[in-house]
Amino acid sequence: MKLLASMKVNPEGVLEIGGCSALDLVKQFGTPLYVMDEGQIRKNCQEYISAFRVNYPDFTVLYASKVFLAAAMCKLVAEEGLGIDVVSGGEIYTAKKAGFPMERAYFHGNNKLPEEINLALDSGVGSFVIDNLPEIELLNTLAKAKDVKAKVLLRVSPGIDAHTHSFIKTGLIDSKFGVAISNGQAMEAIKAILQKDSLEFRGIHCHIGSQIFDLDSYTETADVMVAFMAQLQADTGVEIKELNLGGGLGIYYSDGDEPKSFTSFVENMTKAVKDNLAKHGLAFPRLLIEPGRSMVGEAGCTLYTVGTVKEIPDIKKYISVDGGMTDNPRPALYDAKYEAALANRMTDAPEEVVSIAGKCCESGDMLIKDIKLPRAKAGDILVVSATGAYNYAMSSNYNRNIKPAVVFVDKGSSRLVVKRETYDDLIRNDVI
Amino acid sequence: MKLLASMKVNPEGVLEIGGCSALDLVKQFGTPLYVMDEGQIRKNCQEYISAFRVNYPDFTVLYASKVFLAAAMCKLVAEEGLGIDVVSGGEIYTAKKAGFPMERAYFHGNNKLPEEINLALDSGVGSFVIDNLPEIELLNTLAKAKDVKAKVLLRVSPGIDAHTHSFIKTGLIDSKFGVAISNGQAMEAIKAILQKDSLEFRGIHCHIGSQIFDLDSYTETADVMVAFMAQLQADTGVEIKELNLGGGLGIYYSDGDEPKSFTSFVENMTKAVKDNLAKHGLAFPRLLIEPGRSMVGEAGCTLYTVGTVKEIPDIKKYISVDGGMTDNPRPALYDAKYEAALANRMTDAPEEVVSIAGKCCESGDMLIKDIKLPRAKAGDILVVSATGAYNYAMSSNYNRNIKPAVVFVDKGSSRLVVKRETYDDLIRNDVI
Repeated sequence: MKLLASMKVNPEGVLEIGGCSALDLVKQFGTPLYVMDEGQIRKNCQEYISAFRVNYPDFTVLYASKVFLAAAMCKLVAEEGLGIDVVSGGEIYTAKKAGFPMERAYFHGNNKLPEEINLALDSGVGSFVIDNLPEIELLNTLAKAKDVKAKVLLRVSPGIDAHTHSFIKTGLIDSKFGVAISNGQAMEAIKAILQKDSLEFRGIHCHIGSQIFDLDSYTETADVMVAFMAQLQADTGVEIKELNLGGGLGIYYSDGDEPKSFTSFVENMTKAVKDNLAKHGLAFPRLLIEPGRSMVGEAGCTLYTVGTVKEIPDIKKYISVDGGMTDNPRPALYDAKYEAALANRMTDAPEEVVSIAGKCCESGDMLIKDIKLPRAKAGDILVVSATGAYNYAMSSNYNRNIKPAVVFVDKGSSRLVVKRETYDDLIRNDVI
Repeated sequence: MKLLASMKVNPEGVLEIGGCSALDLVKQFGTPLYVMDEGQIRKNCQEYISAFRVNYPDFTVLYASKVFLAAAMCKLVAEEGLGIDVVSGGEIYTAKKAGFPMERAYFHGNNKLPEEINLALDSGVGSFVIDNLPEIELLNTLAKAKDVKAKVLLRVSPGIDAHTHSFIKTGLIDSKFGVAISNGQAMEAIKAILQKDSLEFRGIHCHIGSQIFDLDSYTETADVMVAFMAQLQADTGVEIKELNLGGGLGIYYSDGDEPKSFTSFVENMTKAVKDNLAKHGLAFPRLLIEPGRSMVGEAGCTLYTVGTVKEIPDIKKYISVDGGMTDNPRPALYDAKYEAALANRMTDAPEEVVSIAGKCCESGDMLIKDIKLPRAKAGDILVVSATGAYNYAMSSNYNRNIKPAVVFVDKGSSRLVVKRETYDDLIRNDVI
């Protein structure tokens, strides 16, 4: 397992994350446990911002909260000066309750419900990213009823083919998200927005996909988006104030993943934007990006306790842990690959190839197939790395398993940010 | 959409389930809404039991609670005289809290945690289905500490290749579940169990997979399992008291699925068991089965409100609903196919092919691709059929969407059995 973020191995051969011994964390908080490296997340925020500062005059970095949201994360993001991207009433509610400055929130979604839009308006959400033609009328009507003017961006489909999993590829024209530039619908939508009394048109947004390693995809995107800005200005005289190029930067999960640095990502993107602005003779819009996975993915890991060790002679050895697809559905959903190690025996030599099974009553509940580990036994602590994104956020109560706790670690101290569920949580909404 | 269970269309062209108008249900409980046809579920319980009564002298039907569990379901199952199969501490806790007679519970799982086994022992769980060799020692130790004798079955792998999705195929030898007959491990395990003071060996269990249409798979399974009983008796003199052949009977999801009737399933299985018992000269063990999906799958449906209707000319029309992969992850997980209709306009002619999108911020959040429907508009009620199994059970809070309510309907009346989550539920464990 590659050591990510602040991970290191102490002299006793035990994994440390944020200066905290994995064994101490397990003792205090139990397993399964999501451990988030707060120092690394703050560094990530700062690296994105620093890279923009030296490369572009006016920018906002939005955290894509869907990848991992908790009140503590909202506070961290606010402290680091980022904005936030929210996609549901639940995310808005969480951010608001955490005291997040909601004028820095951007509300996305292909099917914003009227009650969610009303909640957003009442919560002071700063901007709405309109996703489709019918939303223009809906948002205008609801904003008018509250006598407010909603700031809006339009999500457009630039038609870029980012090379990633089809589930998380979002920039193509055949998508539930956005309106296409190429068929004229984006222009039509903006003209419709400009006609609405209760909408203030601010700019355009796109998102070409997720877990992207190829920076050229972003360059192409900048070409298409700035060309569209120029076309819009020529057609309508309207100047784009905000250009949001989305997120999607890939991270390291397992051998073969070669993520680009945040700095090179920002340098590449800002250069492409600036070159295109110059080419078309356009003023600098505010440039926004929405990193999610890259902000927290490598900063998180999950600690499990090894239970059953089962050997089927000449076939396979299964190591079962006390979690599985309920806390990390990504292997089952996307065939996602993860790395792991025995956190209590980091210096032991890998001896055998095993497969890591979850505890769910389902054959597909496998976390890792064929990984080389030291000879594991019941009671060992297994760490799976790079689980900071889309793990807690996608967790379920399948098999009536309870959701793990989340702790933040930094500089040798730890703090609980989400309590472990209890069995009573499972039945709290049951009518008995 | 094929009308399942008690579904019918009333003279106004509105779908009725259990005699309740879908529109009335939506008005009372909102959407998304899981609707479970209680009358049909009770009929299903009764059909399984009746089929056994005329075909086999001693039997127990266990409901595989992992497919859908709520306190109300535990009560229903108890009233109908079934036992229950549980796979976690959370399921045990739920059943116990609902007043289920726990002696009728069988505890499964490839990695039962010590605290779960203790909870099971303290809750009076009737039987443990030991899944692997290490569990023998673990359970014996924990039972001894409580001075009780645990009744146990052993889960064996019969090596049957049931033709179904690889995620839910569980009977093969290379599985995280069970110990194989063919390599001698099952025999070894039983001999180990027989040596343990605090374990009472009762019998054997297997489960060959899920969503199975081919009854021959069960016949083959009976052959293998009864042959193993004979071998065991010859080797050790031990008579199997309980033979549990698992569940897995397929249901109707969409065109092309041709499920077998419960009666033919039971007839086929009992005949195969009886023939094999006669052939080997063995006494009748108690025969157990564990239907889950077939008990509730077709009896459930989900009602959604249509939101965004988005047309990409010459490419596709997307109909977005107010739920998605959070309440039904099966299309994303297994590429599962579902049928749907407009519940408020059942008699309108299908006019156009559309795709049904969920509201999650993820391209893979599609419920149905390419289905022919009447021209849908915002506010229409979309019903997706056959969502009774593995929907509520697998639901998540991804994107901080809240889990829908569950209602039971029967003979024209409805009752709430699980309340809709609230936004406060999402943050109840956040440390703020």
